[in-house]
Amino acid sequence: MKILVLNCGSSSIKFSLYDFTDKEELLTRGTVERIGIEGGSLVRCVKNSPVECYKQPIPDHTIGIKLVLDSLVNKECNAVLNDLKEIDAVGHRVVHGAEVFISSVIIDEKVKEQIVKCSDLAPLHNPANLKGILSAEALMPGVPQVAVFDTSFHQTMPKEAYLYGIPYHYYEKYKIRRYGFHGISHKYVAQRACEMTGKDFYNSRIITCHLGNGVSVTGIKNGKSVDTSMGFTPVAGLIMGTRCGSLDPGILLYLEEKEHLSIKGISELINKQCGLKGISGISSDMRDIEEAADAGNERAKLAFGMFTYNVRKWIGLLTGVMDGLDMIVFTGGVGENSYRMRHDVCEKLSWFGVKIDDTRNKEALGKDEVISTPDSGVAVAVVKTNEELVIARETHRLVSQGLN
Amino acid sequence: MKILVLNCGSSSIKFSLYDFTDKEELLTRGTVERIGIEGGSLVRCVKNSPVECYKQPIPDHTIGIKLVLDSLVNKECNAVLNDLKEIDAVGHRVVHGAEVFISSVIIDEKVKEQIVKCSDLAPLHNPANLKGILSAEALMPGVPQVAVFDTSFHQTMPKEAYLYGIPYHYYEKYKIRRYGFHGISHKYVAQRACEMTGKDFYNSRIITCHLGNGVSVTGIKNGKSVDTSMGFTPVAGLIMGTRCGSLDPGILLYLEEKEHLSIKGISELINKQCGLKGISGISSDMRDIEEAADAGNERAKLAFGMFTYNVRKWIGLLTGVMDGLDMIVFTGGVGENSYRMRHDVCEKLSWFGVKIDDTRNKEALGKDEVISTPDSGVAVAVVKTNEELVIARETHRLVSQGLN
Repeated sequence: MKILVLNCGSSSIKFSLYDFTDKEELLTRGTVERIGIEGGSLVRCVKNSPVECYKQPIPDHTIGIKLVLDSLVNKECNAVLNDLKEIDAVGHRVVHGAEVFISSVIIDEKVKEQIVKCSDLAPLHNPANLKGILSAEALMPGVPQVAVFDTSFHQTMPKEAYLYGIPYHYYEKYKIRRYGFHGISHKYVAQRACEMTGKDFYNSRIITCHLGNGVSVTGIKNGKSVDTSMGFTPVAGLIMGTRCGSLDPGILLYLEEKEHLSIKGISELINKQCGLKGISGISSDMRDIEEAADAGNERAKLAFGMFTYNVRKWIGLLTGVMDGLDMIVFTGGVGENSYRMRHDVCEKLSWFGVKIDDTRNKEALGKDEVISTPDSGVAVAVVKTNEELVIARETHRLVSQGLN
Repeated sequence: MKILVLNCGSSSIKFSLYDFTDKEELLTRGTVERIGIEGGSLVRCVKNSPVECYKQPIPDHTIGIKLVLDSLVNKECNAVLNDLKEIDAVGHRVVHGAEVFISSVIIDEKVKEQIVKCSDLAPLHNPANLKGILSAEALMPGVPQVAVFDTSFHQTMPKEAYLYGIPYHYYEKYKIRRYGFHGISHKYVAQRACEMTGKDFYNSRIITCHLGNGVSVTGIKNGKSVDTSMGFTPVAGLIMGTRCGSLDPGILLYLEEKEHLSIKGISELINKQCGLKGISGISSDMRDIEEAADAGNERAKLAFGMFTYNVRKWIGLLTGVMDGLDMIVFTGGVGENSYRMRHDVCEKLSWFGVKIDDTRNKEALGKDEVISTPDSGVAVAVVKTNEELVIARETHRLVSQGLN
């Protein structure tokens, strides 16, 4: 079975093509950039190197996906398919499944309606995801499509974890609650780390730290997400590249009053001007922060320190929630690449039984690695996340079931 | 040395009179209610029973404090002093000392100016505290007065703990940071629990849970507050009686947009309509919640469960911050009285080494008690908080130093 995976944003599409016939083989991957904006392009991996296959205006998602399909059979781009009919199924990443989608689903009319309904909770993401679905349907009629949600994995959280301390009727009326995100990644890296360490995913207490530009940390107990740091929106929890994380609500009121900020202004502030960027005044990128800190910049050191402090806090918190800890998994751009961040977090968790091997920690770059010492009470692993593979697997599973 | 302690709110004054001559003796305590509101009164303990000494309009704090003084020498109210000149010093509780007051101080003109400056950060509290100071000065000229701040104890927090993930210039411009509150209580109960358990306050990792209508949890490492749940304002952290605790900032924006709430409306909501009250729809009082939960009310059960879950989360978080845990202390109305809350919190911290004796836990009502088992890895104590005593001690200490 050949599966196309689409992750549609408002102005970009990430795509990958898998062949699950014999094994889980990635045939190619790429990105469509600047949809609806001047300077559109499609870049696709050809023999492991990114090659710009198309450079042209891409007015909408349908034309973007058409280019994706063209590129797959384009001989000049090192075609990976002879005919588009070889694509057996399409898997879509959908950000928000609210309380409706507790697992992946084959897309039908009702599913599309529900994705529209969830758009109010993810106005930046779900409409773009839906555009991708509609375009793919139009271009590949009859090919089964599957939606894999970023929120589904967290639907196992108990009520005491997912409700906020606000009047209950806001949950009833607006469904204001903790949803959590990055679910596809959290599940993948936890399972992958279990393979690496021999732990039983269904009988362990695991904390997965997805640390990229977006940051979320999840407690997984016996295979189920029991609590996670992101909340009603992806701005909550830990400090991130440009997002503030959870706040004293009094701060927003104070700022609105003092700075006369509108709702839109506050939204822009908490999403784009905060986190590492806001603290350091330098960059939202941890690589820049570490470089500036090395050069002696105090605010960069502070931003780095706050980031590791936040991770440590949340590891403690989730250990309290699960009443125990068997494994910590680091993933995401920062989680996979910053050995210093991992070192600083783990060093101050010795009471928890965490002990890492500094050499293995430094060497864990771009590959999956167990970095705890053999006598560590808590296993620590670094795993490169692979959301596309999970989407392909889910698509394969559901479509295979449908064929039976 | 006889010390009058005053805790002035916007429409009430709590007072107590201590005699530190031979030992720390409480001579009396009482409350002035409804200052500036119809139905003013002064109730004072006479032979351990509250007696209404005065019932009359009390237009302002000066008249309120005058009544306090009158009641102390009023033979009909079982006078505790022959002459007001016996009062050697006055200690005031001041809520917000910002970054200026890292410890208690003898009040002079400069201190009063600074308390005014801090009022922007505590508009409901500091002005009332200052009124009390000015009135006491006017009524007892020449008597030394001391300010004891609710924030001072937390001024030892490191920068990575007290800064938020918002642009740094908001800290520089407005001093937006975590301050923490209940500092007088946290320090007192930690030290008292150390006396009870033989632990060294300056060489232990202690989590103090001040759980009343206001709720805050503090990590105290080697005698210093290293992090605490309340933040820039007292609305942050855990869910409380009517306050929401920390939130995903996206929630406030969503509610402002959907419900067209003003800043004032949101402030009213997060301070008065949330927490146990908002979740249960019944009451902000834990006694009512437990009673309703016993009667089968699902929302009351949920509110109770969320409360204990919040406490457990914060104990985990602060254990992460301190990299270890030697003792948990419960105080405040709920902390001192709800054995079920303590049971539910501690039961699910077994991995942390917490083990409590159910009998001692149930018996710890209205008295200081160690409730952990002898073999518990973490000591657990219940301590009745006594902020007035701390204020009296601080006043005694500073005024004695001044006399030397």
